[in-house]
Amino acid sequence: MTQQRHVINASVSPKGSLETLSQREVQQLSEAGSGSIYTLFRQCALAILNTGAHIDNAKTILDAYQDFEVRIHQQDRGVRLELLNAPADAFVDGEMIASTREMLFSALRDIVYTENELDSTRIDLSTSQGITDYVFHLLRNARTLRAGVEPKMVVCWGGHSINSDEYKYTKKVGHELGLRKLDVCTGCGPGVMKGPMKGATIAHAKQRMTGGRYLGLTEPGIIAAEAPNPIVNELVILPDIEKRLEAFVRVGHGIIIFPGGAGTAEEFLYLLGILMHPDNAGLPFPVVLTGPKSAAPYLEQLHAFVGATLGEAAQRHYQIIIDNPAEVARQMTQGLKEVKLFRRERNDAFHFNWLLRIEESFQRPFDPTHANMASLQLSHALPPHELAANLRRAFSGIVAGNVKDKGIRLIEQHGPYEIHGDPEIMAPLDKLLNAFVEQHRMKLPGGAAYVPCYRVVR
Amino acid sequence: MTQQRHVINASVSPKGSLETLSQREVQQLSEAGSGSIYTLFRQCALAILNTGAHIDNAKTILDAYQDFEVRIHQQDRGVRLELLNAPADAFVDGEMIASTREMLFSALRDIVYTENELDSTRIDLSTSQGITDYVFHLLRNARTLRAGVEPKMVVCWGGHSINSDEYKYTKKVGHELGLRKLDVCTGCGPGVMKGPMKGATIAHAKQRMTGGRYLGLTEPGIIAAEAPNPIVNELVILPDIEKRLEAFVRVGHGIIIFPGGAGTAEEFLYLLGILMHPDNAGLPFPVVLTGPKSAAPYLEQLHAFVGATLGEAAQRHYQIIIDNPAEVARQMTQGLKEVKLFRRERNDAFHFNWLLRIEESFQRPFDPTHANMASLQLSHALPPHELAANLRRAFSGIVAGNVKDKGIRLIEQHGPYEIHGDPEIMAPLDKLLNAFVEQHRMKLPGGAAYVPCYRVVR
Amino acid sequence: MTQQRHVINASVSPKGSLETLSQREVQQLSEAGSGSIYTLFRQCALAILNTGAHIDNAKTILDAYQDFEVRIHQQDRGVRLELLNAPADAFVDGEMIASTREMLFSALRDIVYTENELDSTRIDLSTSQGITDYVFHLLRNARTLRAGVEPKMVVCWGGHSINSDEYKYTKKVGHELGLRKLDVCTGCGPGVMKGPMKGATIAHAKQRMTGGRYLGLTEPGIIAAEAPNPIVNELVILPDIEKRLEAFVRVGHGIIIFPGGAGTAEEFLYLLGILMHPDNAGLPFPVVLTGPKSAAPYLEQLHAFVGATLGEAAQRHYQIIIDNPAEVARQMTQGLKEVKLFRRERNDAFHFNWLLRIEESFQRPFDPTHANMASLQLSHALPPHELAANLRRAFSGIVAGNVKDKGIRLIEQHGPYEIHGDPEIMAPLDKLLNAFVEQHRMKLPGGAAYVPCYRVVR
Amino acid sequence: MTQQRHVINASVSPKGSLETLSQREVQQLSEAGSGSIYTLFRQCALAILNTGAHIDNAKTILDAYQDFEVRIHQQDRGVRLELLNAPADAFVDGEMIASTREMLFSALRDIVYTENELDSTRIDLSTSQGITDYVFHLLRNARTLRAGVEPKMVVCWGGHSINSDEYKYTKKVGHELGLRKLDVCTGCGPGVMKGPMKGATIAHAKQRMTGGRYLGLTEPGIIAAEAPNPIVNELVILPDIEKRLEAFVRVGHGIIIFPGGAGTAEEFLYLLGILMHPDNAGLPFPVVLTGPKSAAPYLEQLHAFVGATLGEAAQRHYQIIIDNPAEVARQMTQGLKEVKLFRRERNDAFHFNWLLRIEESFQRPFDPTHANMASLQLSHALPPHELAANLRRAFSGIVAGNVKDKGIRLIEQHGPYEIHGDPEIMAPLDKLLNAFVEQHRMKLPGGAAYVPCYRVVR
Repeated sequence: MTQQRHVINASVSPKGSLETLSQREVQQLSEAGSGSIYTLFRQCALAILNTGAHIDNAKTILDAYQDFEVRIHQQDRGVRLELLNAPADAFVDGEMIASTREMLFSALRDIVYTENELDSTRIDLSTSQGITDYVFHLLRNARTLRAGVEPKMVVCWGGHSINSDEYKYTKKVGHELGLRKLDVCTGCGPGVMKGPMKGATIAHAKQRMTGGRYLGLTEPGIIAAEAPNPIVNELVILPDIEKRLEAFVRVGHGIIIFPGGAGTAEEFLYLLGILMHPDNAGLPFPVVLTGPKSAAPYLEQLHAFVGATLGEAAQRHYQIIIDNPAEVARQMTQGLKEVKLFRRERNDAFHFNWLLRIEESFQRPFDPTHANMASLQLSHALPPHELAANLRRAFSGIVAGNVKDKGIRLIEQHGPYEIHGDPEIMAPLDKLLNAFVEQHRMKLPGGAAYVPCYRVVR
Repeated sequence: MTQQRHVINASVSPKGSLETLSQREVQQLSEAGSGSIYTLFRQCALAILNTGAHIDNAKTILDAYQDFEVRIHQQDRGVRLELLNAPADAFVDGEMIASTREMLFSALRDIVYTENELDSTRIDLSTSQGITDYVFHLLRNARTLRAGVEPKMVVCWGGHSINSDEYKYTKKVGHELGLRKLDVCTGCGPGVMKGPMKGATIAHAKQRMTGGRYLGLTEPGIIAAEAPNPIVNELVILPDIEKRLEAFVRVGHGIIIFPGGAGTAEEFLYLLGILMHPDNAGLPFPVVLTGPKSAAPYLEQLHAFVGATLGEAAQRHYQIIIDNPAEVARQMTQGLKEVKLFRRERNDAFHFNWLLRIEESFQRPFDPTHANMASLQLSHALPPHELAANLRRAFSGIVAGNVKDKGIRLIEQHGPYEIHGDPEIMAPLDKLLNAFVEQHRMKLPGGAAYVPCYRVVR
Repeated sequence: MTQQRHVINASVSPKGSLETLSQREVQQLSEAGSGSIYTLFRQCALAILNTGAHIDNAKTILDAYQDFEVRIHQQDRGVRLELLNAPADAFVDGEMIASTREMLFSALRDIVYTENELDSTRIDLSTSQGITDYVFHLLRNARTLRAGVEPKMVVCWGGHSINSDEYKYTKKVGHELGLRKLDVCTGCGPGVMKGPMKGATIAHAKQRMTGGRYLGLTEPGIIAAEAPNPIVNELVILPDIEKRLEAFVRVGHGIIIFPGGAGTAEEFLYLLGILMHPDNAGLPFPVVLTGPKSAAPYLEQLHAFVGATLGEAAQRHYQIIIDNPAEVARQMTQGLKEVKLFRRERNDAFHFNWLLRIEESFQRPFDPTHANMASLQLSHALPPHELAANLRRAFSGIVAGNVKDKGIRLIEQHGPYEIHGDPEIMAPLDKLLNAFVEQHRMKLPGGAAYVPCYRVVR
Repeated sequence: MTQQRHVINASVSPKGSLETLSQREVQQLSEAGSGSIYTLFRQCALAILNTGAHIDNAKTILDAYQDFEVRIHQQDRGVRLELLNAPADAFVDGEMIASTREMLFSALRDIVYTENELDSTRIDLSTSQGITDYVFHLLRNARTLRAGVEPKMVVCWGGHSINSDEYKYTKKVGHELGLRKLDVCTGCGPGVMKGPMKGATIAHAKQRMTGGRYLGLTEPGIIAAEAPNPIVNELVILPDIEKRLEAFVRVGHGIIIFPGGAGTAEEFLYLLGILMHPDNAGLPFPVVLTGPKSAAPYLEQLHAFVGATLGEAAQRHYQIIIDNPAEVARQMTQGLKEVKLFRRERNDAFHFNWLLRIEESFQRPFDPTHANMASLQLSHALPPHELAANLRRAFSGIVAGNVKDKGIRLIEQHGPYEIHGDPEIMAPLDKLLNAFVEQHRMKLPGGAAYVPCYRVVR
């Protein structure tokens, strides 16, 4: 394998006057080998340079480029990065693609800032409000929060590995969003994270819109597996998965959910859990589930699952639109108008959804041990938004068991997770998971046949 | 007097997407009356709104607008400021002048950030390096540090209250700087702080340069007395006088010194003290003393004083150019070329002079008590850069005794400061100070005849 | 059919300060029904509004929207167009797509200017130089000629109706051109005229290039059949086919030829005829024939035909690259460097290829009567560039006989054209034409089975 | 004298992609010595290069730089101008000031276009409408007509040689106009033509307005005497004085008249003659006469003259404001609102005052022979607007007799012009002219004591 890798050495500076670092910050980043900041930056840089490559396994990439190094220099014109043994794909005839260069410096910015910010006593991560403030500061520092801009940031969630029919559909939806001058935010990898941005790029060009935003939100654990696609023109690396989820729902003004696997289900349940919280009643938040005709069964299944577990009230938080990109965009446009009206009335910021209540339980990571999985309460006795929270945790555990290092090791040691609960919840859950398997939506690294990492105990 | 004041109530939002604040930050600023942040912001806001008025006494302004209030609101499009009983001069037919609006939000930014930054454990104000890092962070947050831009920021120092002949000369020098596409940085008040910016604005227009920078550096204690002139298009409020001085010499690439009083002498000695430090030997830093023909005696006196006290070596750090604006600009352009070359060779940033050694004694405030003034060592036994430091302190004390609240009160209680030292230093000092008085460069608030606040003990 | 047409009434103004018209010019355009200018503008406007529709027959469109009307008004903010019964496709939720709006006003500009220009005595269309000046004036008025920009305009020629494999390939080539920051110029319809622009748009976004140019050159006779695709961000309507061809070779710095039919062959022979002219010896003009693997036989056939008729010398004017988009872009980049060097040495404009000699015979329309077709001299006795000119005329006649009103009527009356010539030319010609038919590259309006409009007389 | 002239040789290209010329156009301009176009361009170029110099005599400049040459080259990046023995004042350290460079290429553009346009049969200079169309085409080609921009172009008329008090006042008025975001148009020389632009530049900077327009309208006969000041950022050279006057009133939305001499009086009467035309009744056109306190007698005299000759109706077309720059700007702002409303209601263009009726007599030059002057009908028997036209001619003759070659020669041959008319007109005319002489507003080239070139025959 190794001999096929093309590598390149290069030296890059930010275009324009992007970022400046203090000598101390440069030093922190330069203590190669030792510092955790350096390790983090190297890993993100490698993922970014690997953009466009179709490897959805972080470990594979890290292994393939073991001799990759990035050195940071302070110079007359600012910071310069020296890359050794970098993947050649990020270069065109020896010159780095501008978007890749931009993202490298975005990563630098976010990693340095995240580190500095944690030193500050003003950040109190022990409270819900403190966590939200932290997310706000990270996004503000990344210049993601644009005061004065009307609500038009549409988040697109869904699988990073979907079939060609579904991919084309996401491009069409993106095109219709773009024709209506909406912006697109995704998790910034391939698949659903790329298609809508590509469609919107073409549509923005047709609308002669030069400031179209393609915002990618990621985190260090996921960036390598889902390398940012180069259309992303704003990249923010949040410190972990929960901050990233919070960033999605506070920065996005509406959400479109395309077909995906357990990860998408996790995101969907996270969203429903929040929207169903009594404090959020009346707060407009347009959500559309959509896909091409071929994805209709999938969407109906998901819808049925929500109905069977969280009830009709949950179903009222979204609408399903099959095979009609223009209608998706029209509904989203309509929903955004209500968001705008609501925020204006309540004096809430357009650029950050302060009014949305997110319970601390949604802000804290779920540790998918066998014990935690087994003791998840999945019962209709709970208020629906708490049930949603627990279902989200169940899916989170399954994602971990499928693809994350720690989860995989736990499964190897102790066998599949056991998930217990009310039979009326267990049955639809089992059915949904089986459908995911049948539809090849439970992808494994390497592409082996899927062996479930869970057992639904009815 | 009061009945002449025109006041106005208004509500302003930042143009474009300038600044966003978190709810907590808004709250901090809103606790009117109680919080020191609010008091600070109100005071700066009042000074900014008073732009163009010719009052050089902070107290007068604060007294004149006792019922002035500023309220801060978070809303859909971002932050909004509500101003009550604001000076009407900042408005044109009821609409606030854009530069004033910009500066209000700059003040907001700097005050909030300064406060937050002090909470951070990464800032260690007990070390020289820590103080420099702090200044760097404040300037970076204000987006003053533009990586990649070649050295062209020329600092202009001199009196805020000069005669018409000298004022016209500063405009001409600014015009010649502007024709050579140089930027201008001043203390952002009237007089020398305004003239060069005005000249440069016209020249930049002639050169079709749209991004010309007119950088004003100020601090809360001085902003009211020297309200920012509205040509300033970048305003930074540093937390105190020493941070401001450090900002000048680290951000400026060259310095022009026009006629002024004790304050200007203080700045000049601060600069000489730094440039004469052995560690800074060989570091290029163009300095020009200049004025119209009528100011020649003043400049020669200053020059003679430097020669008599710090010696010929000190004189080699600057050149004197009389009545020749084009030559001033040419010499500065030449000096900037050397700065560029030097930084390129040493890999120092163009945007921040990291290599300049500033001793901690220059970074710490001097407390002008009678005891401190009397015990200043002013002797040729000291290394010249330490003598410069002490002379700077002497002038700093005189400025305090002339115009600052605390200094004035001390003088009232204990009589004039006594300044002791070697006779060969005392004689020229006395002579210079007398000349300042004769030339009416020792201005007092209110304009009363000058009674010296010091006594040079030969 | 009629009931399926969605029509819309709308009123549009140019965005920004695009065009201003005098009262006389508005009047000329307003004399609806009578004036030929109005008719011309209405026809172009209809074609532009029909963008995206997949009808390649001008007549069909004109028939489908017989009640379409466009009225022009002079108002406070400039010109306004009132559209009645316009095709609804050009609108998104009732608002016209920006690119469509732009193109409408480009059409207005070109039609008004072309008319005015013809009134000028400085234009002497009786000489070759006069025709070239005319083309220059039309392009200059359309602001197509950008002084100071280095050579990077790549013309893409090929069929407007190609298969999906070939279409995808044109997108990939466009993407590689775009990654190298090259611009794209096409005939501005669908197929090869759209794919490269789409690919380049995505690549320019990746390279953060905001000023990418997608130049479409068309003429009134062809615009309806090949409606401008909405990615085109500069549209120029030249008065006839020969002016359009001259515009292509004088404004383009290199040409890529993708698979196409008789029309593409005509363009290719036009180009070869010019490049082979002795006066153009040594003038660099990069030409690449390319296509996906599946198109290899087609390209080889074309190449063989050139070899058999015009000889090896002709073949040296282009290179063939199969299935390698990056290599196409690399070769083009290399070729453009030579163009730049050459123009710099000869002091020729980057923006207009003055040095290229185009004989008057190439600038004059060929009238494809049976007599003219029959008397075409297709013989090796001619100098190769004259033989190329005559072969181009033969293809031009075939295109007319296939799709143009007048040509079709002539064929109906008199039967197929007869083409005579040397057997060594007739044989490869016959073979090439047969291959075109077999490969379905000889499309007819309506899609009927192809009956040749010509007979090659060996 | 000659040895004091500093001259320089230089080569300049337009910045950005300003203008492109055809080979034929370059050739026309290159036939040095012979062609009248070359002579015209050389003369304008010399005047532009002489910007800032204080010579108000065209002949002096032309004589001083007899060996000045300008050569025009066509090159890779477009047109290049080679200047030999050019005045050194237009250069800063050897580099041409950007505004000067811009104006050189504006002159090139206008001279080439004017020439070409005259070749066009669509221009019919024998009709009033044809002349207006011609003016429109010239302004459109210079990109002066910006569709979509609301009325805000304020024309400032007045003397090019005024005293320091009056000059400062024009700067203040310009500053107040600029604070209200209005643009300024003048005859583009020194004095009143410069002051308002300078003031507006500073005010636009304060308002952070980057697109402020400083439009200078001139003509070849006047450009040398009133060299464009370098703040002008749009220069248009109209072919003669009447086209220039028409351009002023069709492009300007309001007019401010500052103190001046016979030329200013001529412009004022031209304006009154038009506004008093019955067809223009009801058409809003704000006109303000203003000056500092010291100019009050002048303004009152002018006002009295208008009252005595054209009557109270004429006086209603303007207002007089003494020493109140802010009020001038406020009145102008108010007047512009009415202009906007009116044009919107009548569907007239904001960018060109089509509705303003200008009689052909105002569009045709007046030839100031002794016979023509003597036979001017200056009688109350005429309709007031015709009387205004004749009074304008009288002043036009006096200007010619004062400063123009031909006029001066006629006076030398035949003695002063005789002006006849009704005694009630002759008396105030005589008084006004005497006042001009006393106030030194009748400047002569060279500055000799004024000997009247006219005799008012009562």
